[in-house]
Amino acid sequence: MSLLNILPREKPPLSFRLLQTTPEPGTRARCGLLELPGASVNTPVFMPVGTRATVKAMTAEELETLGYRLILGNTYHLEMRPSAALIAGLGGLPAFSSWHGAMLTDSGGFQVFSLKTLRRISDNGVQFQSHIDGSLHEFTSETVMKIQRDLAADIAMAWDECAPHPSTKEYVEAAMARTHKWLDRCIAEYDAAGRRATNGMPQALFGIVQGGTFKDLRLASSAYLASRDLPGYAVGGLAVGETQDERCMSIDWSLQNLPQDKPKYLMGVGTPVDILEAIDRGIDMFDCVLPTRNARNGQIITSTGPINIRNAAFQSSPSPVDPSCDCAVCKRYTRAYVHHLFRMNEMLGPRLTTYHNLAFYANLLAGARQSITHGSFLQYKADFLNHYCTEPLGDSVHE
Amino acid sequence: MSLLNILPREKPPLSFRLLQTTPEPGTRARCGLLELPGASVNTPVFMPVGTRATVKAMTAEELETLGYRLILGNTYHLEMRPSAALIAGLGGLPAFSSWHGAMLTDSGGFQVFSLKTLRRISDNGVQFQSHIDGSLHEFTSETVMKIQRDLAADIAMAWDECAPHPSTKEYVEAAMARTHKWLDRCIAEYDAAGRRATNGMPQALFGIVQGGTFKDLRLASSAYLASRDLPGYAVGGLAVGETQDERCMSIDWSLQNLPQDKPKYLMGVGTPVDILEAIDRGIDMFDCVLPTRNARNGQIITSTGPINIRNAAFQSSPSPVDPSCDCAVCKRYTRAYVHHLFRMNEMLGPRLTTYHNLAFYANLLAGARQSITHGSFLQYKADFLNHYCTEPLGDSVHE
Repeated sequence: MSLLNILPREKPPLSFRLLQTTPEPGTRARCGLLELPGASVNTPVFMPVGTRATVKAMTAEELETLGYRLILGNTYHLEMRPSAALIAGLGGLPAFSSWHGAMLTDSGGFQVFSLKTLRRISDNGVQFQSHIDGSLHEFTSETVMKIQRDLAADIAMAWDECAPHPSTKEYVEAAMARTHKWLDRCIAEYDAAGRRATNGMPQALFGIVQGGTFKDLRLASSAYLASRDLPGYAVGGLAVGETQDERCMSIDWSLQNLPQDKPKYLMGVGTPVDILEAIDRGIDMFDCVLPTRNARNGQIITSTGPINIRNAAFQSSPSPVDPSCDCAVCKRYTRAYVHHLFRMNEMLGPRLTTYHNLAFYANLLAGARQSITHGSFLQYKADFLNHYCTEPLGDSVHE
Repeated sequence: MSLLNILPREKPPLSFRLLQTTPEPGTRARCGLLELPGASVNTPVFMPVGTRATVKAMTAEELETLGYRLILGNTYHLEMRPSAALIAGLGGLPAFSSWHGAMLTDSGGFQVFSLKTLRRISDNGVQFQSHIDGSLHEFTSETVMKIQRDLAADIAMAWDECAPHPSTKEYVEAAMARTHKWLDRCIAEYDAAGRRATNGMPQALFGIVQGGTFKDLRLASSAYLASRDLPGYAVGGLAVGETQDERCMSIDWSLQNLPQDKPKYLMGVGTPVDILEAIDRGIDMFDCVLPTRNARNGQIITSTGPINIRNAAFQSSPSPVDPSCDCAVCKRYTRAYVHHLFRMNEMLGPRLTTYHNLAFYANLLAGARQSITHGSFLQYKADFLNHYCTEPLGDSVHE
């Protein structure tokens, strides 16, 4: 008998309800309500990335103002500094960072497998040295679940191996097989801990479909994950250099065998266009550093496409940051002013562009949800693509 | 006949009204209402420093939330980048930076005379090379007034020479004599331009008392300035390395000959203790980079004295940033979290400490005004000094 059966469970870690009953023909786009201990979240949803317990340049209040109720934290970075143990002592990551909503933590796999020179992979997990102080660590299914229990996010991700792109099919298959074995160890650890975080809050575990861009591997992986009845599922191993066609097909294969009534999360994606394409294919949840990282380099995302505010063309422009946006930044500040702030490396520059880009993503997703509800998602997507130029204006001055 | 007499003047550039009628015995502390084109401001007032058209790490909205209605901009930095001409083309500094309150610009003298290797002083002014691109510039009474007209601040400062400390009496006296001559040229230029900024707004000119720490020079300088009937007066040349006693005496000498009914501005001062001492002596206006610059180094100013949040002692502290403060930062965030943000060089760290320190200064000045109104300023000052330890806790880990 697992601990799960003897612990009181006053609420489930997650419930997901599909909201529209008659889907629009020609698309698998869907609206849902994701209920987590920390917040109720309408899907499709974009999660800003709060790598080190902060969405860079933003306060928690500002994220709330923009309507964000679910953000992401990075297991690897937080375990290196200040450590999950310290965060657990302060009540978990939401309490530590004074975040009054819900959180998802990644497994740390993506970061650890990127440490080319500092890691050793085995069937048990990965041994590696911290990029900060060289200290030795090992991430396994059990340690990663323990760290995520300590962080006390609403959603924990299973420990997985994200194979680099391109890799041989043999390597991708071996990584997928490890990921499946590791998932079963994660589930055992999850059940043994009563599906709860260290602070006592219920926690949901998502499994991750891998398999690179190989159809048979993606189908096999999604079938394997579907056989484990998990609160939710993620599509991993994409946005690592594959083409858009490869990505779209890999998403379709990954979702094919997964149950309809569970939330589906596409990890690390992406541009506004990528997100609309993936919503079209049935994805419910997204995260990506793009709107925040690019904002810090001066890239402003607008309805006509990205612009780089460092470009000299904006030096004297009295236009709002994005003339078709009604966020607090666009209602008040001009392109000339933000250009000046970036030229002078003033902190207010990335503050304003980050705020706007996250407002843009919030509006993009709110528009998608509304159009799905009204049965007009394909028109919404077509209108967006029609106005949006993906080549950034002035990106020659990109950092 | 000056242009002043033929231009329409629907409102004066500045009015100042002393609010309390029966001063408290034993102090010259006073409350006033300073009415400027951009805002009405209660004095004594602290002006945050917005060197390059931004109070570093803060938005205009946040400054407004904290009650700031008057901030400072730097003539030298703004002329170097993006240039007063560009700012004039966009309507002046308040419009350029979307600041909906009042502004004061300094004369640039303090910065230009600090360019030890790049400048040449003459009786006409200073020739110097830009620290950014090496371009040649000359600041004189006329150019500095023109720049400040273009910047269109509510209050322009006269072009002055701030002698370094220590200097010989001969040098300080020569610098003072130049400052007086330059003042008269500033007044001529001010009148010729109709006492208006390039954007048509009325502008107030403040003269600056110099004279180092020499009693006779300070008295002579304040007598000279009093003979020019100006909208307001500043005490310059302090906070450059003199002792607290020297500063207090120099303030007294500087104010001695100035008219009672005009606003008095102590430039570049200072710590909370410095400010209370100067209010006690009759100063109405302050500016200083201390609360904002120190905030970016992790120094948090609290009612019991400054602390450095980088100190390891705060690593696990669940205490609010300043337990006796009710600002938005102290109501939400812990010392452990802000310690983590600074350790990781996250932008949110200096954002939160800057916001709190400016809230602290706003509260300090609001408390001073209230106590003056109630005739209890000396008690307010004594209570503050009694609780405030000037040695920063944990400052050994200062940057």
